[in-house]
Amino acid sequence: MLSKPVLEDPIFVEGLPGFGNVGKIAANLLIEFCSAKPFAELYSPSFPDCVTVNTTGICRLPRYVFHAAPMEKNDFLIMTGDTQPSLDDVVAHYGVCSQILDFAEEFGCKFLVTVGGVAASEDKTEVYVAATSSRLAAEFMEKGSVIYSKGRIVGASGLLLGLAKERGLESVCLLGTTTGFKVDRGAGFSVFKFLMKALGNEVKEGL
Amino acid sequence: MLSKPVLEDPIFVEGLPGFGNVGKIAANLLIEFCSAKPFAELYSPSFPDCVTVNTTGICRLPRYVFHAAPMEKNDFLIMTGDTQPSLDDVVAHYGVCSQILDFAEEFGCKFLVTVGGVAASEDKTEVYVAATSSRLAAEFMEKGSVIYSKGRIVGASGLLLGLAKERGLESVCLLGTTTGFKVDRGAGFSVFKFLMKALGNEVKEGL
Amino acid sequence: MLSKPVLEDPIFVEGLPGFGNVGKIAANLLIEFCSAKPFAELYSPSFPDCVTVNTTGICRLPRYVFHAAPMEKNDFLIMTGDTQPSLDDVVAHYGVCSQILDFAEEFGCKFLVTVGGVAASEDKTEVYVAATSSRLAAEFMEKGSVIYSKGRIVGASGLLLGLAKERGLESVCLLGTTTGFKVDRGAGFSVFKFLMKALGNEVKEGL
Amino acid sequence: MLSKPVLEDPIFVEGLPGFGNVGKIAANLLIEFCSAKPFAELYSPSFPDCVTVNTTGICRLPRYVFHAAPMEKNDFLIMTGDTQPSLDDVVAHYGVCSQILDFAEEFGCKFLVTVGGVAASEDKTEVYVAATSSRLAAEFMEKGSVIYSKGRIVGASGLLLGLAKERGLESVCLLGTTTGFKVDRGAGFSVFKFLMKALGNEVKEGL
Repeated sequence: MLSKPVLEDPIFVEGLPGFGNVGKIAANLLIEFCSAKPFAELYSPSFPDCVTVNTTGICRLPRYVFHAAPMEKNDFLIMTGDTQPSLDDVVAHYGVCSQILDFAEEFGCKFLVTVGGVAASEDKTEVYVAATSSRLAAEFMEKGSVIYSKGRIVGASGLLLGLAKERGLESVCLLGTTTGFKVDRGAGFSVFKFLMKALGNEVKEGL
Repeated sequence: MLSKPVLEDPIFVEGLPGFGNVGKIAANLLIEFCSAKPFAELYSPSFPDCVTVNTTGICRLPRYVFHAAPMEKNDFLIMTGDTQPSLDDVVAHYGVCSQILDFAEEFGCKFLVTVGGVAASEDKTEVYVAATSSRLAAEFMEKGSVIYSKGRIVGASGLLLGLAKERGLESVCLLGTTTGFKVDRGAGFSVFKFLMKALGNEVKEGL
Repeated sequence: MLSKPVLEDPIFVEGLPGFGNVGKIAANLLIEFCSAKPFAELYSPSFPDCVTVNTTGICRLPRYVFHAAPMEKNDFLIMTGDTQPSLDDVVAHYGVCSQILDFAEEFGCKFLVTVGGVAASEDKTEVYVAATSSRLAAEFMEKGSVIYSKGRIVGASGLLLGLAKERGLESVCLLGTTTGFKVDRGAGFSVFKFLMKALGNEVKEGL
Repeated sequence: MLSKPVLEDPIFVEGLPGFGNVGKIAANLLIEFCSAKPFAELYSPSFPDCVTVNTTGICRLPRYVFHAAPMEKNDFLIMTGDTQPSLDDVVAHYGVCSQILDFAEEFGCKFLVTVGGVAASEDKTEVYVAATSSRLAAEFMEKGSVIYSKGRIVGASGLLLGLAKERGLESVCLLGTTTGFKVDRGAGFSVFKFLMKALGNEVKEGL
């Protein structure tokens, strides 16, 4: 932890690399929109055993970064990162996600939003939602998303959602539709815009 | 654990997803037949790192559920679930199955029935049996099943059977024959009907 | 452990399933030849999560079995089994093999023979040898085997050999040549016969 | 540990098998050039479960070997080895690399050089560099290497670099370009020569 921000009843938002990179793009747009500041990093031996190197040749281990955004309406605690844990070690993934929830609870988060991508279907849905309660599912459906009823959400977005439910935390997962063939900035923007609208913020198209 | 039922000398029955989903179907039929009530849940970091989402958009972590059925003849403790542990982590699977047996023994179970599916052969056998003792194998053979002698039973049905034997618990594994291409309700029903008959209960075809 | 045999300076012989099943066959021939008696079993959560079922329908967990053979010339402690640990869990394999060496040392074993199969080459070699010392390699070469110099011996036969060396135990690995396509009783017999000859016992062809 | 050499402010150099075997070749050339003496070995249950056998039939477990070279200019602590940890166990790899850094710090190493291979590109670069700081990246760029900006360095060379950075140790990774199809002695020599030049030593071509 680099510093300890004071946040009031913050909403936790998670967006990591994945299908179409929708989650990471949405999280980064939110960070930009809120001018959120990084304040903590998470390293784990279950992340890939490699370093990422930036264009100036500086290396660093794969990590998750937590950003704080004190806002007028809702404070945000936003997590994004370089990677997801190795597929081989499911037990470690449960451990990492539990640590993340511990951390979020320390800052008083009671509501979590996880963001991911999902294969586009024929009905032109832009954002699907799954939730920890029927009240929340109904609330986000009213705001324009469609109930996700295809069975499973894999990876951190699903696991955080399920573990949050076990702890009695409210949580929704928003899934932006994408072909997934490449980094899908459009899908990331759609989910970001929907999330902002759902939380009562307005986002202009030209961001 | 949600509540603590009182069961007398209960028979433990396990049926999880697998080949043709025979085990899970048979367990669900038994739950329905006995009006068994769920009373405990098992979560494990060795289960897949995802959530399952139902048709109303409500998520939950993969889990095993234990049901209690106090009956006139034999009480039942029935376990079914969404999944089996990740293939990558055999050590974790031994741990989960040991916990299940601890739990079953706490409730006084001394006899276990595990249910699974197996590839259909030409001789039209419907239910195969493997057991922890030759007495049990003979007893279930007399009641109409055929000795399974093809070498291995993989997954929870096999592992629970083997670990039960090491603890001195009596156990049989019933394997319903199926092509395995799809969820085989017929095979599940055959095993369920055979189990009921073997334990002295009558099941009418129209269930 | 089922009983505790008294053995004098026994030679430990390991033969497990593997390429052409050469190791297991050789170990079983030695057990038969010496009328060795099983006296201990090893179970491990790193063995496959399944049961093996015999022709009478009786199940059991995969295991290693230790046999004792008090002989006139050299006592033997022979280990064979149903399986080798899961390929996914190398760390567990080191643990299992260390336990085996602890067990062998408890009985006073100072010399170990591991047996495996290797792909046949053009020069019609029947038995290759690798050893923990050049003295041992030379000794077994004199007795008719050929130095194995192809780089690696994988699985329990190799790992036991390497771990034995680290403990200061003398050990050789005998590799019978086989095509490996099927269970190769001939290759297993060749290694068994060579081992008996090397240790000063005579084996008649008609065993 | 076989002996405890006294080294003054040594530079740690790592070169393990990998793409084109560039790292291992460079490390071996440095060992030869400095007449470095082996003084410690590292074994790990995360290394493959096999033995390597040399041409005289003598086996040994996969290991890393540490060599000490007290020199006039800079002392070296050089690590090379037979293998890299199993791909399946990323958590174990973090553990092994942490142990290596503990060991290097014990000997007073404050600067680390890791060496690997990378696919050759069209611009005929011979040696790429990634570093823990921009000052170091600039320093090695001035001496003739090119900034590596392709995203990731996998395996021990990358992981040691990243973990070193987290500990506040300075480190560079030098990557020799190679087609990787075979053991590339030329690429190994290029990196070795560059490293020697960068550290102010002269190497004649005919080594």
